[in-house]
Amino acid sequence: MTASPLVWLDSAATSQKPRQVIQALVDYYEGYNANVHRGVHALSMESTGRYEEARQKVADFVNAESAKCLIWTRNTTEGINLVANSWAMDNIKPGDEIVVTAMEHHSNLVPWQQIAKKKDAKLRILPLADDHTLDMDAVDRIIGPRTRLLAMSHESNAVGTINPVKELAAKARAVGAAVLVDGAQSVPHMPVDVQDIDCDFLAFSGHKMLGPTGIGGLYVKLDVLEQMTPFLTGGEMVLAVTYEDATWDDLPMRFEAGTPNIADAIGLGAAVDYLNALGMDNVREHEVSLTRYALDAFKELEEELDVYGPKDAEKRGGIVSFHHPDVHPHDLGTVLDRRGIAIRTGHHCAMPMVRSLGVPATARASMYLYNTEEEVDLLVDALKEALRYFGNGAK
Amino acid sequence: MTASPLVWLDSAATSQKPRQVIQALVDYYEGYNANVHRGVHALSMESTGRYEEARQKVADFVNAESAKCLIWTRNTTEGINLVANSWAMDNIKPGDEIVVTAMEHHSNLVPWQQIAKKKDAKLRILPLADDHTLDMDAVDRIIGPRTRLLAMSHESNAVGTINPVKELAAKARAVGAAVLVDGAQSVPHMPVDVQDIDCDFLAFSGHKMLGPTGIGGLYVKLDVLEQMTPFLTGGEMVLAVTYEDATWDDLPMRFEAGTPNIADAIGLGAAVDYLNALGMDNVREHEVSLTRYALDAFKELEEELDVYGPKDAEKRGGIVSFHHPDVHPHDLGTVLDRRGIAIRTGHHCAMPMVRSLGVPATARASMYLYNTEEEVDLLVDALKEALRYFGNGAK
Repeated sequence: MTASPLVWLDSAATSQKPRQVIQALVDYYEGYNANVHRGVHALSMESTGRYEEARQKVADFVNAESAKCLIWTRNTTEGINLVANSWAMDNIKPGDEIVVTAMEHHSNLVPWQQIAKKKDAKLRILPLADDHTLDMDAVDRIIGPRTRLLAMSHESNAVGTINPVKELAAKARAVGAAVLVDGAQSVPHMPVDVQDIDCDFLAFSGHKMLGPTGIGGLYVKLDVLEQMTPFLTGGEMVLAVTYEDATWDDLPMRFEAGTPNIADAIGLGAAVDYLNALGMDNVREHEVSLTRYALDAFKELEEELDVYGPKDAEKRGGIVSFHHPDVHPHDLGTVLDRRGIAIRTGHHCAMPMVRSLGVPATARASMYLYNTEEEVDLLVDALKEALRYFGNGAK
Repeated sequence: MTASPLVWLDSAATSQKPRQVIQALVDYYEGYNANVHRGVHALSMESTGRYEEARQKVADFVNAESAKCLIWTRNTTEGINLVANSWAMDNIKPGDEIVVTAMEHHSNLVPWQQIAKKKDAKLRILPLADDHTLDMDAVDRIIGPRTRLLAMSHESNAVGTINPVKELAAKARAVGAAVLVDGAQSVPHMPVDVQDIDCDFLAFSGHKMLGPTGIGGLYVKLDVLEQMTPFLTGGEMVLAVTYEDATWDDLPMRFEAGTPNIADAIGLGAAVDYLNALGMDNVREHEVSLTRYALDAFKELEEELDVYGPKDAEKRGGIVSFHHPDVHPHDLGTVLDRRGIAIRTGHHCAMPMVRSLGVPATARASMYLYNTEEEVDLLVDALKEALRYFGNGAK
């Protein structure tokens, strides 16, 4: 451990947590820990009430039409896999096309590769323009009558690009395709409204939005969800069971088999309270301002470093991904760590995207509501010193 | 909320948590919260170390041959579904038989109904004897050359019967079948040794064994796991990804897609430390003694109540399930709740089992290491008073 104060620039991997969220977990375990939905005793009724109240909060946070549309998952990845194993297994047919972007995280790429193989469907990739935004001309060539699903990240975790998901969803809807949005990097950082986007699915993770690990949300449009086959089966999700067969419970329980992650769902509700108190417009504004400041500060290093993603802070989140041709990102990260600055280095679970940059890995500083301009200065100063240490080579 | 001190007799639904477990969560979130496996910064290395240390503890707790055999899940249900969707989808063929017991929880019944349907296989049920133990004569008639999987609860959550899983596993192995043990009610309450049982799969939940909600373990025998197809796909579980295809990471990460439930895995490790410090033999001994005391105390009510399960405390866990012919269990539970006594009432997610008792529901008091003889007395006194209140009718 370093003796310096921590500069946490790894929020795209996971965010730090406010005391209110940690206290919500302690309150649950110390005060009203009980399994939900089936007990008549007071603690079970209290835990059930608080747990379902958290669901309503999280559903409202993304403007879901009903709390019934919000399924608790472990993380974004499980949410996308649920859609792949339920909706896609029933709806993707041979010859259909699944369209993803070239900037997908593995969690929104590998499940579709698997479905494409199982269903003899085709996976198509929306390519990028030079500034690592989507090539919108290609979009109109690729999304077409064979498209059955458009699955796209809202914001690239590797380079920070924000995609125009509402515009893209409309193009997909126009050809009769369903729309999935990977909101892992957007829901924590900006107002996200599923009804405005008009998507069928939105998956996101609690731990990236001030919440605990082990809990996430999957929004599914109500009329789509009503038609979907359950994914995991067992207790909590059934209405009646005989030795021979079972019938399914109401929504959303039908998609939540077994004892849920009660404490962390309540913790995520507390995180949403915290974010709502700040206001998501303010959170976004802070990050745009900080990103603009960071992109500006990185100009001092433009001789040495390639910085990826769009130059306009309005078109991106607070993720600054960069690379030096002669210094491995791992080495940069290690040197920064000695100064108490935590950044992430590697392929960011987006190997094809990072390879398309012509590098095997990048260094990535990712910011959130608690970061400051002073911390950006510390990062840039530390990078300058690190590059001097490694030989001061211009790229 | 009641003003009486809480008498928690609902540990089969979920256990209460020691301060050490709650503190482990607080320590993680306040002290070293970071995503695992990919970071070079100090916090990520610390969280990865503690997270993998927890895996080793939990693997050792069930005597797994390697920490590689221990996959983190949300709960027992997810573990069984993982086996169903991976191993069973690859290995169950038309005409094969899947054998379960008549006392299964829905989580170890409904997934096999689904697999039987998908694979044109047959689900067979091991019947019960009059004392709600397995009918061992029937076992030898039902387990045979067509049996491909024996999936059995170690201990019934509805009536407390402990099954002779080692003996049953040997019978299944003798005909070449695989063996899954639902350890949801056994792993928290007695020493469980997967190598001694010689099972292929053991699923269990953290929240029933002093740990947090949202975390559980699935043990899979190493040579079986090495042959299994990944279930969920995405980040963390891949070795290399192109736009076209992906290769899988080492065990056990191959079965853990996305950011795991880091905090709660570490919390479960702390729960295992707590249980180990007590000694699982002592935990079991305490519960046998308490169960014997409870069965004895319930004799005072034998005119009024049917009490289910074997009479010998050595053959059962600390679960006492009972029913009055004229008083609905829900009403009993409500009256007890007013005295601060939390029991569960209903079908206990084992509808076919409970129906086989000839009742729609039972009342269930379930005990754990923190319960006392005084609490059993409070339960029995409260039941007497409740039955007087409801009319004092003998059955």
